[in-house]
Amino acid sequence: PDPQAAEAARRRQARLTKPAGSLGELESLAIRLAGLQGRECPRLERCHVSVFAADHGIAASGVSAYPQAVTAQMILNFAAGGAAVSVLARHSGAAFEVINLGTVEPLPPTAGVLDRSLAPGSADFSQGAAMTQDQLEAALAVGAERVESAADAGSDLFIAGEMGIGNTSAASALGAALLGCPPAQLLGRGTGVDAAGLARKEACIRRALELHAEAGDELELLRRLGGFEIAAMSGACLRAGQLGLPLLVDGFIVTAAALLAVRLQPSLARWLFFAHCSAEPGHRLLLEALNARPLLNLDMRLGEGSGAVLAWPLLQSACRLHSEMATFDEAGVSEPPADSDPCRP
Amino acid sequence: PDPQAAEAARRRQARLTKPAGSLGELESLAIRLAGLQGRECPRLERCHVSVFAADHGIAASGVSAYPQAVTAQMILNFAAGGAAVSVLARHSGAAFEVINLGTVEPLPPTAGVLDRSLAPGSADFSQGAAMTQDQLEAALAVGAERVESAADAGSDLFIAGEMGIGNTSAASALGAALLGCPPAQLLGRGTGVDAAGLARKEACIRRALELHAEAGDELELLRRLGGFEIAAMSGACLRAGQLGLPLLVDGFIVTAAALLAVRLQPSLARWLFFAHCSAEPGHRLLLEALNARPLLNLDMRLGEGSGAVLAWPLLQSACRLHSEMATFDEAGVSEPPADSDPCRP
Repeated sequence: PDPQAAEAARRRQARLTKPAGSLGELESLAIRLAGLQGRECPRLERCHVSVFAADHGIAASGVSAYPQAVTAQMILNFAAGGAAVSVLARHSGAAFEVINLGTVEPLPPTAGVLDRSLAPGSADFSQGAAMTQDQLEAALAVGAERVESAADAGSDLFIAGEMGIGNTSAASALGAALLGCPPAQLLGRGTGVDAAGLARKEACIRRALELHAEAGDELELLRRLGGFEIAAMSGACLRAGQLGLPLLVDGFIVTAAALLAVRLQPSLARWLFFAHCSAEPGHRLLLEALNARPLLNLDMRLGEGSGAVLAWPLLQSACRLHSEMATFDEAGVSEPPADSDPCRP
Repeated sequence: PDPQAAEAARRRQARLTKPAGSLGELESLAIRLAGLQGRECPRLERCHVSVFAADHGIAASGVSAYPQAVTAQMILNFAAGGAAVSVLARHSGAAFEVINLGTVEPLPPTAGVLDRSLAPGSADFSQGAAMTQDQLEAALAVGAERVESAADAGSDLFIAGEMGIGNTSAASALGAALLGCPPAQLLGRGTGVDAAGLARKEACIRRALELHAEAGDELELLRRLGGFEIAAMSGACLRAGQLGLPLLVDGFIVTAAALLAVRLQPSLARWLFFAHCSAEPGHRLLLEALNARPLLNLDMRLGEGSGAVLAWPLLQSACRLHSEMATFDEAGVSEPPADSDPCRP
């Protein structure tokens, strides 16, 4: 981050043909991005979307309304362009890829799907650790690899999406452990489980939190309670912070992965932007823990990165307004007297 | 509106490859647009933006931080592409035009500006009526004309924007009269007036409301307290309702014009969508009076149509998701058992 570039951007905002402050959040975003990119006029024109997918052993406990086969089926749907995030990415002009970290149903090699399978899903965290140490490290490395690849391709924004039947349970367990709150405060109905299913989900997560109560640091929590795609996304956040690539955080699952990464490396928080507040009750709590100000609040709860791909044009618009609007001088527009505007520095 | 098309759209939403309800507001928007357009898969691909501009006699009372010359200067800035709404419209692919309804500073013929001047600004409504009856009718007709022109060109969404130094005072006076509340509840600092200016603005509007207390119906309120561009936008709303063209409402000023139009013709409300809740305090009250659920809340308070042009890709995305996502059958994705999902009909 470059405070001089941010200051230059702040001065530029005051010269643009509009009342000072009248673009609200869009002004703050442009100034913040100027500081991050180290230039007065930041650019966000090349967005990269990686959807990380994996199965979860916890799904065997009946925590989801959908069968586990859906994870593999949805990977094919992502690649074929039929999923929500695929439709949004196609129209937004973002680069789009799907990464398979391991599904119960085996998948043939498929165009548009990177095979990074670690196992046919993680283990059931209500019985033991979700991952081995090797699997955890491999999953973190997959996330880092995709961020490096996006940065090498000249991307200026990274979006991580996810898919994995059972992963709201894993994210809720992780979130409860990180926030030190009862899991009931975070639990929603995920993909649409009924009341009995919700009670089962809560009991299962409570048992798991007791089982793993002695887990020491955040990485160990991630190994025990996470999942392959969640660990990959934490790895993506960590690498984005190291490389200085802004990352737009999507929904509940991604935010849990991001919070874990921020606990490991607090300085990466400055690279995170937040797309939306979802209808999953736990999401708001995780966002608060990250001091996040999400851009949208449309009651979405789909995941996949869909909320982030929907929101990134707002970030892009903030940059375009900042760069392309005329200044008062350029347009020959009269400014108000300096003392009449309480917002003007 | 076609309830069968809306019902077909509702059934289609339940077959798309996502948990029922997980796209939140985007689902409701697609279903509502299906009913309005009378087809299962609505389309929003051609958006038309008309920015209506005019000067206001009330500006002589010192209600704005900017000199009145800025209205004409900004008209040129809109046409030259340097204003916020110009930048946003250019990148969004929307058709864009500026309509001059009359400025204090005369303007030469300019490419991209339609000259519909009625007078060098409306009269000072703190001294008398803002408009003559002829001017009111002409201004309403200009708005209707631009909606007809957009509809003839095949537009499927209309956005009205506005510019006019002093027009937050006119909109506040109109809003207070329509809501029957003290003007202080609606007043903000507009383009950035200081505390003394704000007190002057409030006193001036209170006097004007007393002066015009005997105005009978809404049209008479509009004639006495409105302005040329505000009347044009009310005319645009009325014509959009008659032609069945969805209209995306921008900020405080447009919402005041829209509320007035809805009071005249309540059935047009179904054609209105609401882009954002601005930082002008009165906007929230006007939105509540219209039962509006705005899409964005980014503390914007610029006007010009900028919030609506920023938001229209969200409506477009709702339609594209609805039309282009694969169904469970098409993608070979397993559905949950029907009884497991409380959201599924």
